[in-house]
Amino acid sequence: MTQLDDSKNRQSLLDLINTTDFVEHISVDCIIFGFHKDKLKVLLLKYHDLDLYSVPGGFVFNHEDLRQAAARVLYERTHLHDLFLDQFHTFGRIDRTENNVHQILLQNKGIEVPKDHWIFQRFISVAYCSLIDYTMSETFPDALNESVEWHDVDKLPNMAFDHERMINEGLIHLRKNLDTQLVAYNLLPEKFTMMQLQQLYETVLGEKFRRNNFQRKMLSLGTLERLEKFYDGSPNKAPYLYKFLPSEISV
Amino acid sequence: MTQLDDSKNRQSLLDLINTTDFVEHISVDCIIFGFHKDKLKVLLLKYHDLDLYSVPGGFVFNHEDLRQAAARVLYERTHLHDLFLDQFHTFGRIDRTENNVHQILLQNKGIEVPKDHWIFQRFISVAYCSLIDYTMSETFPDALNESVEWHDVDKLPNMAFDHERMINEGLIHLRKNLDTQLVAYNLLPEKFTMMQLQQLYETVLGEKFRRNNFQRKMLSLGTLERLEKFYDGSPNKAPYLYKFLPSEISV
Repeated sequence: MTQLDDSKNRQSLLDLINTTDFVEHISVDCIIFGFHKDKLKVLLLKYHDLDLYSVPGGFVFNHEDLRQAAARVLYERTHLHDLFLDQFHTFGRIDRTENNVHQILLQNKGIEVPKDHWIFQRFISVAYCSLIDYTMSETFPDALNESVEWHDVDKLPNMAFDHERMINEGLIHLRKNLDTQLVAYNLLPEKFTMMQLQQLYETVLGEKFRRNNFQRKMLSLGTLERLEKFYDGSPNKAPYLYKFLPSEISV
Repeated sequence: MTQLDDSKNRQSLLDLINTTDFVEHISVDCIIFGFHKDKLKVLLLKYHDLDLYSVPGGFVFNHEDLRQAAARVLYERTHLHDLFLDQFHTFGRIDRTENNVHQILLQNKGIEVPKDHWIFQRFISVAYCSLIDYTMSETFPDALNESVEWHDVDKLPNMAFDHERMINEGLIHLRKNLDTQLVAYNLLPEKFTMMQLQQLYETVLGEKFRRNNFQRKMLSLGTLERLEKFYDGSPNKAPYLYKFLPSEISV
């Protein structure tokens, strides 16, 4: 966990509100799910001085594609990069930013901003999700603005805006598309056992499967190639190794 | 096919550019696929005086939710309503509106608009898709602005902006989600035969299936309830009727 000091936080808020080349009314948010063994978590930022959390998000520069903005925003706030970001929904309810957190943050730091400043406008937010092994990136050394931490998906703290809804929708999307997008997330070693695959599925989907049923379902997808057996020297029956067949991912 | 006269078209363009309560930089587009027997089509509008087509789209008022805007825009331009609109992707490449069609249309009508008018700005567009039986709504009596027609999905005319890409992405989304969203599209009678279901699948997916394989796959989804046999008096073997089981649709 990284927490920046107060003056740095004030400065980054000032930098943000003085930026004039964002596309108005549009934001991007990144729902980064973290998986390891039997835990499923989500990456949250905590606001300074408030018991309030958000997913990593930000604004779109005039000179960049929407997708580039999502990747940049995620990098700036977490130093995660090269993730497969899957755009899953755009959130545009009229009341989604009514409880304007930015106003409270600016007031707390004694920063005066005119009421018609772009940051207080209505924002429609394009949400992306990803899935990583959270032990690969447990710390975020230079993350800006807030503390950055993994939270259990089933024990979310107090979330800003409609971010709790975003996380729930993101999780539905992730689960629904796991069969076709797992390869893109690059979570398993090149060769893996059926048990490793099953553990990943059970953790992400939040349910247990019978070993035979799971194996049958996976093989019926036609996405796996069976390789040699994996001998680890134990007296147990050696399991087969598998790898993913090359496939086209529609993004 | 409906085509409005020139002065009405000019007036609707003037009304559009004089509107001041749209959320800037955001548009919505509706990819409406039409199915009947073995044909799959998509609903396109033709621009006045140009050999150029678009999907039905428009802007978002400050006072409405994104989803409401999509439904309203579709209704205004086609008089289609109460469709299940499924948001599938937001298109945000920086160059997507570079070839600004509105500029050409306005020039053609001799309407002068300052270069910094909101209509010439960068727009990020949220796209929705739907699937209907196009014989249920073949005519669009009061549709505004352009002619409205069904076009074969595999013979698209010259499309404006990135609308060809939108249609292609929409079709990928539709095909990928047909199993789970077919009920919502309400395309079949309450009771239907396996052959009716198969024809719909083959038309939308653009491929043929063997009868036994198709039936096995459909029954394995767990979404169908088998009912009584359907006797139509013909000497053929009477087929079973099916209906969809009640289910939750995630939107």
